[in-house]
Amino acid sequence: LPFEVTILGCSSATPTADRHPSAQFLQIRNSTFLIDCGEGTQIQIMRFRLRTHKLQHIFISHLHPDHYLGLLGLLCTFNLQGRNTPLTIFSPPGLQEVIYKVFNTSGVVLQYELVFEIVNTSQPEIILETPEVLVQTLILQHRIPTVGYLFREQPTLLKIDAAKAALFKLPFEAFKYFKRGEDFVDESGQRFSYKDFTFPPPAPRSFAYVSDTIYTEEILPFIFETDLLYHEATFMHDRLDRAKETFHTTSVQAAELAKKANVKQLLLGHFSARYKNLEPLLEEAREVFPDTALALEGLKFTV
Amino acid sequence: LPFEVTILGCSSATPTADRHPSAQFLQIRNSTFLIDCGEGTQIQIMRFRLRTHKLQHIFISHLHPDHYLGLLGLLCTFNLQGRNTPLTIFSPPGLQEVIYKVFNTSGVVLQYELVFEIVNTSQPEIILETPEVLVQTLILQHRIPTVGYLFREQPTLLKIDAAKAALFKLPFEAFKYFKRGEDFVDESGQRFSYKDFTFPPPAPRSFAYVSDTIYTEEILPFIFETDLLYHEATFMHDRLDRAKETFHTTSVQAAELAKKANVKQLLLGHFSARYKNLEPLLEEAREVFPDTALALEGLKFTV
Repeated sequence: LPFEVTILGCSSATPTADRHPSAQFLQIRNSTFLIDCGEGTQIQIMRFRLRTHKLQHIFISHLHPDHYLGLLGLLCTFNLQGRNTPLTIFSPPGLQEVIYKVFNTSGVVLQYELVFEIVNTSQPEIILETPEVLVQTLILQHRIPTVGYLFREQPTLLKIDAAKAALFKLPFEAFKYFKRGEDFVDESGQRFSYKDFTFPPPAPRSFAYVSDTIYTEEILPFIFETDLLYHEATFMHDRLDRAKETFHTTSVQAAELAKKANVKQLLLGHFSARYKNLEPLLEEAREVFPDTALALEGLKFTV
Repeated sequence: LPFEVTILGCSSATPTADRHPSAQFLQIRNSTFLIDCGEGTQIQIMRFRLRTHKLQHIFISHLHPDHYLGLLGLLCTFNLQGRNTPLTIFSPPGLQEVIYKVFNTSGVVLQYELVFEIVNTSQPEIILETPEVLVQTLILQHRIPTVGYLFREQPTLLKIDAAKAALFKLPFEAFKYFKRGEDFVDESGQRFSYKDFTFPPPAPRSFAYVSDTIYTEEILPFIFETDLLYHEATFMHDRLDRAKETFHTTSVQAAELAKKANVKQLLLGHFSARYKNLEPLLEEAREVFPDTALALEGLKFTV
């Protein structure tokens, strides 16, 4: 079952001709999520042929314009496309008022339910739990209240060792106990441990989205051994002062965090428009953490 | 001196992968103007390598989201780029409040002066006059108050017939009178008519922007013999009922108006996302008015 992140935008506040502002499309099994929604996100979704009919949850990290302006058009387009299922938007406070100011000015009347969930920006919390996914916030340190988001797959069911069970002539009925991690007791009272007839499931996969923030190790315990870490890298390390001043991170700092967190792979994004060529930025990060990639738009990363 | 329209977006409300919402960039001599500003306009400006440092005036036709949402990001980017010259936005009422709602929510403080000019949406008026250009509104009929814009070059100066003036041994000083359309009287009191020593200037060029509207002939006297007419053509003519219902125009209607107005060239745009292939739409318009083109994004039309 898929666990994939598609990059829709990788620019910091000022976009460039080929770098849109922040937005990522996440597919975890049968669920799809949108994380941040910079200007142009709806067109990027069309360009990369992504399907939004299953999208029920959008996560906004903070209310700087490059992280949410695309919502306005996207929500209108859903309306024009006849969407009639509810949509929930998680964000720091203030978003609902902006959206309805636009809608009221423009005579937009939504035909579907829009739910606003305000996240706590000072305390991490679990904000969504579905049979497939658990989502919790990461507290970031930016110029305005900002959160990151950690997506964890729910543990998958045990895999049955069917051949072995057949040798023991266990009835098919036993499998449903085993799948849930329960023992099976047959009519004669004999107990069969699920451990003997199942393979352990693969560890649940995880993805952390960290943008925008000054370098902070407070999130380390939450992102430890995450499979895929997206971390902002607005500047190269020679602009560390500028990064601190603007509450952003350098590529080397992002790599250091990835190393300390022992993640599998690091994605860098939120690049300053000053960098035409991003290879030097990638190279200096790879010297610290080799499994690093640039989160360029259109790329799809599989966990 | 240039008089050019570059198309930045040609979609109606729902964009497609290769059709952004409405926006056009106009260069008249040394002046540049932006007309409507749908989502993604700032990136389109970058893609097509247009320069905005001389941009002082933006014209918004109406406050449906596909005609102004791109302003929010564009104005922020100008700020980040260090713009410090005033910018004036003409639009129906309500825009200023939306923009400041976004800026206040997102902590954006503009470093340049933003001037809002509210246009009269029931009575056409001249709204801008510079040494190079005169701009007036066209009253359109849409679901909300909407105007079009007519751009007319100011009459250029007369061109001196220098060879003839030299034959008459007229002093160089006489030319400045002739250029202004005044006669020159020499020291002996002899009068030389400017008409005898000048060529008439070319007729001032003009461009009319008409989006969005139901078919209306009320604008005919204003756009008569306009060089270039951009007119919305949201639907093909087989959807005339739908066009009327939504206060839009069909391609054939736009062509009929162009024909009655005896314009030089017609540009069609604001296409419904339902049309993957726009050639049939163009063809049926050309049957009525042959000098018709599709206003596809990235195209530059010279008047």
